[in-house]
Amino acid sequence: MAKLYFHFGAMNAGKSTILLQAAHNYTERGMSVLLLKPAIDNRDSDDGEIVSRIGIKQKAITFEPEENLEQYIGNHAQQHDINCVFVDEAQFMTHDQVWQLAAIADRLSVPVICYGLRTDFKGQLFEGSAALLGIADNIREIKTLCWCGRKATMNLRTNEAGLPVTDGAQIEIGGNDRYISLCRQHWRKYQVSRTT
Amino acid sequence: MAKLYFHFGAMNAGKSTILLQAAHNYTERGMSVLLLKPAIDNRDSDDGEIVSRIGIKQKAITFEPEENLEQYIGNHAQQHDINCVFVDEAQFMTHDQVWQLAAIADRLSVPVICYGLRTDFKGQLFEGSAALLGIADNIREIKTLCWCGRKATMNLRTNEAGLPVTDGAQIEIGGNDRYISLCRQHWRKYQVSRTT
Amino acid sequence: MAKLYFHFGAMNAGKSTILLQAAHNYTERGMSVLLLKPAIDNRDSDDGEIVSRIGIKQKAITFEPEENLEQYIGNHAQQHDINCVFVDEAQFMTHDQVWQLAAIADRLSVPVICYGLRTDFKGQLFEGSAALLGIADNIREIKTLCWCGRKATMNLRTNEAGLPVTDGAQIEIGGNDRYISLCRQHWRKYQVSRTT
Amino acid sequence: MAKLYFHFGAMNAGKSTILLQAAHNYTERGMSVLLLKPAIDNRDSDDGEIVSRIGIKQKAITFEPEENLEQYIGNHAQQHDINCVFVDEAQFMTHDQVWQLAAIADRLSVPVICYGLRTDFKGQLFEGSAALLGIADNIREIKTLCWCGRKATMNLRTNEAGLPVTDGAQIEIGGNDRYISLCRQHWRKYQVSRTT
Repeated sequence: MAKLYFHFGAMNAGKSTILLQAAHNYTERGMSVLLLKPAIDNRDSDDGEIVSRIGIKQKAITFEPEENLEQYIGNHAQQHDINCVFVDEAQFMTHDQVWQLAAIADRLSVPVICYGLRTDFKGQLFEGSAALLGIADNIREIKTLCWCGRKATMNLRTNEAGLPVTDGAQIEIGGNDRYISLCRQHWRKYQVSRTT
Repeated sequence: MAKLYFHFGAMNAGKSTILLQAAHNYTERGMSVLLLKPAIDNRDSDDGEIVSRIGIKQKAITFEPEENLEQYIGNHAQQHDINCVFVDEAQFMTHDQVWQLAAIADRLSVPVICYGLRTDFKGQLFEGSAALLGIADNIREIKTLCWCGRKATMNLRTNEAGLPVTDGAQIEIGGNDRYISLCRQHWRKYQVSRTT
Repeated sequence: MAKLYFHFGAMNAGKSTILLQAAHNYTERGMSVLLLKPAIDNRDSDDGEIVSRIGIKQKAITFEPEENLEQYIGNHAQQHDINCVFVDEAQFMTHDQVWQLAAIADRLSVPVICYGLRTDFKGQLFEGSAALLGIADNIREIKTLCWCGRKATMNLRTNEAGLPVTDGAQIEIGGNDRYISLCRQHWRKYQVSRTT
Repeated sequence: MAKLYFHFGAMNAGKSTILLQAAHNYTERGMSVLLLKPAIDNRDSDDGEIVSRIGIKQKAITFEPEENLEQYIGNHAQQHDINCVFVDEAQFMTHDQVWQLAAIADRLSVPVICYGLRTDFKGQLFEGSAALLGIADNIREIKTLCWCGRKATMNLRTNEAGLPVTDGAQIEIGGNDRYISLCRQHWRKYQVSRTT
């Protein structure tokens, strides 16, 4: 029985860098990895890549919300070695897909390591994050910081003019530069009525 | 700005013991703590107590789902010193109450330490746990084990005859002895159709 | 292959309580534990007990610095089931004894969970702690606090009159009440010349 | 009061990548960092760089064992903003230098984040690692893996022919490729007489 991991962090915490480094640790030892990401994330010009702001990137296989990941990975495993599955932007997975990844860990004994956001710009859990926080065997925070120097745990969305917005759809892909990572105290200042 | 903590664990992991020990660390140093728990939990004969299976207990103040915890604690703080707030059975809080506790940490600079379950017997997050996993500044697991020796992360509910059940209300208080902590692999064996 | 754990914390952090709760989790599931502690610790009237300030205690087997723990536990395991070994006051073990415990985890596949201090009243590692911090598979802090509310990581020794002392033997058993847990900043105030 | 961090990991775990990503998080928010490394490490052609195997690097200031880091950083802070100090290859610091960094965190309120190995190829703590494990406010493992898939915690040294060696000086710089990260069980196989 392998483990299902969730490494979460606010926007621009370096999650993709750490994913790519961890995948590199596997391949450097001659092991095989499978890099996945939900298709919804088209922030990068090339949809099929995991891109780190620090200057490294890697091809990834994208999947749709309807994809059964247990079947997909299971089929893949019959033809290729897989020593570890990595999922970037894991917050965009469906609830069912997270349970399918748990089944991969439990039944195929292949570790699955997911990276993603905890909450959206309104402070609400994403579907994928909620499921991962509920059943991941191992939960770890990738830290980043607010401009004040404290740890940033919240994500503020801004509009084209760079001004904070508190309404809108949960998912609105448009570039990392539309989000600012803040500590809860500073994030709270821009929330007019939503929370106490 | 103080922190909001969530220490989660499966049934019978020893969460109440660790809560009482941490509260003891405060009072031993001459500091004051406020012990809270949702009123819904009447598993103990005396509703107003935090009881550890290992043989220690402490009075606690119970609160209803309608209670505004920011107001309640704020009022309390005007008349008494509070160096730390502890909440047991935190999974039973409402979403709003968790945000109210975050406000206590942010605005009153009083740390708030919550203990509770992650998921119910169906593997679904509780309302309070979901909110805490979303915004707590610090998330830590209190480990316990499956009969097989692996870490237990899931809770199985049994009926009066000791047999596993997979249907029923999320909250059905009736004694710790109706729940068995299992690793996901062993918990899964008793789920007929629910998950992949 | 099982793991070797080191849970460290300052004086009066509640290490023994947490050890006893973890051991209880095993026995409650019908598993067998072996409770050990170095013989040097005679702070308690009864040398052969693990005593928690919060009001619980348990018999333990004491061992001398010359004891080969791999042999001792190995012999014990031939006659009794052992699902987990617990060691309290682990800082007092020798370097070799820590490696012997690692061998128990590696060769017998029995997890070994050690609890102890990191540093003495001069801020220097104990022999057992140094070895555990070097090779434990899992290191976790049990937190407690300074009177100022910050995390306490250092231990101050006081004399009969309650005044801080900075000289003396590393081990001088005489009751927990002779030690005060402090954050590094407050501990530092009582160190005259030792550190920068 | 800021914190002193120690992020440790076996050889080739990706410590430098994670250091560079964390430093990037600071500079991206307009904050200033100071990158340091002990001069002893000349494995890279250019002594004054932090180089990651994954393909990124950054200039760093090297320092000698005699350097008083509290003075050095203090002087630097009088002329430049410093929001965070990063130290790579922290295992090579002296005991005193680690205490000097603690003083920077305590007195200047500048966080200091150190990355390094725990133990040498004989399984013994380095001087810098021992001091950091003793007094760091926050200790975290950067994981990597053994060829068997388990977590690697030990470092095996090999000679020019690629064969394991168990004797020699603690520090013998000559390229990462002379070291293999292993789990303790596999590392142990190559230790003839040293440990139990």
